[in-house]
Amino acid sequence: MKNLGILLSGRGSNFEAIAKNVAAGKIPEARIAVVISNEPDAGGMAIAQRMGLEALLIPSKGKQRQEHDGEVVAALHQRNVDLVCLAGYMRLLSPWFVQQFPRRILNIHPSLLPAFPGLEAQEQAFAYGVKIAGCTVHFVDEELDHGPIVVQKAVPVLETDTEGSLAARILEQEHIAYAEAINLVLTESFDIAGRRLVRR
Amino acid sequence: MKNLGILLSGRGSNFEAIAKNVAAGKIPEARIAVVISNEPDAGGMAIAQRMGLEALLIPSKGKQRQEHDGEVVAALHQRNVDLVCLAGYMRLLSPWFVQQFPRRILNIHPSLLPAFPGLEAQEQAFAYGVKIAGCTVHFVDEELDHGPIVVQKAVPVLETDTEGSLAARILEQEHIAYAEAINLVLTESFDIAGRRLVRR
Repeated sequence: MKNLGILLSGRGSNFEAIAKNVAAGKIPEARIAVVISNEPDAGGMAIAQRMGLEALLIPSKGKQRQEHDGEVVAALHQRNVDLVCLAGYMRLLSPWFVQQFPRRILNIHPSLLPAFPGLEAQEQAFAYGVKIAGCTVHFVDEELDHGPIVVQKAVPVLETDTEGSLAARILEQEHIAYAEAINLVLTESFDIAGRRLVRR
Repeated sequence: MKNLGILLSGRGSNFEAIAKNVAAGKIPEARIAVVISNEPDAGGMAIAQRMGLEALLIPSKGKQRQEHDGEVVAALHQRNVDLVCLAGYMRLLSPWFVQQFPRRILNIHPSLLPAFPGLEAQEQAFAYGVKIAGCTVHFVDEELDHGPIVVQKAVPVLETDTEGSLAARILEQEHIAYAEAINLVLTESFDIAGRRLVRR
């Protein structure tokens, strides 16, 4: 069994989907070892407690990034975390943090990267008028929404869509994509050629 | 019947697909009024002649953009062209040209714009490691690969893909997307809200 460490700052809808998939045996190689929030009011913490998972608050407020990242990495190492999953974690990881878990940190982003990085990606895509939106699970590197791509899912924009209905359909695909990506990273052998994920 | 004017600089695979779709009755509202190339050796010219279409060479070499654009626009107007379709036309249209055919110039680009504008989009996408590639038909505005999007098609990148096999599958979808976009523009009522195409 591999240990997952989840980092979140808010509701953590993607955390909840991962936890339900783990509980349902759909991510058979993994257990959730710890859920860490930097925000005391993160809704995901209550969900973690309700599901019987360790919910650890490591506040970031008033701390330098280096100090906070050090505390989070120490907590992950103590629990022998194999794979770190960001689920709405609203902090950019320091290069040092990334180097502690080489190709072992995943993030999900609600667009088909490299289109629409940054905040409110679904709204950006809707306003741009794309006909194909989607989501991306990628390895985290030192740049925002940038590392090698593990899984992408396309979501057609419908004639009747609003920003909200589009974002909701993207979110459904995020939940599917994240489980797929975790399974792939935990069970498959792959190389990164340039920035392309290639199965061995 | 609406008159299409095709502009190309090379082989014009998308021109050939449009012409075959018109001949097969799949773009029922349109006929091809003229095929214009700025390059004397463009392969598309021989195809146009073989299909019994007017193939008009308007060389760009040694001319200012303003002069050349003026000749092309005059030729299009003389033939009462309703919709201009770029099919591998390797010149940026001047703002003046664009203004002569407001929302009546289409271009096709082999990526899911706004990702991977510019040359060799398929190679860019392959090297970036995307899992969903595709193509875009869009209205032409004064910026490169930028106007409001009419149709997009997603193309999954396969584990076994090379740059070549991916580009070939994108090209198949380009042919489908271009016919769809021409039909939509010629037969549907729509508004552009911001830069989103919205059917009335």
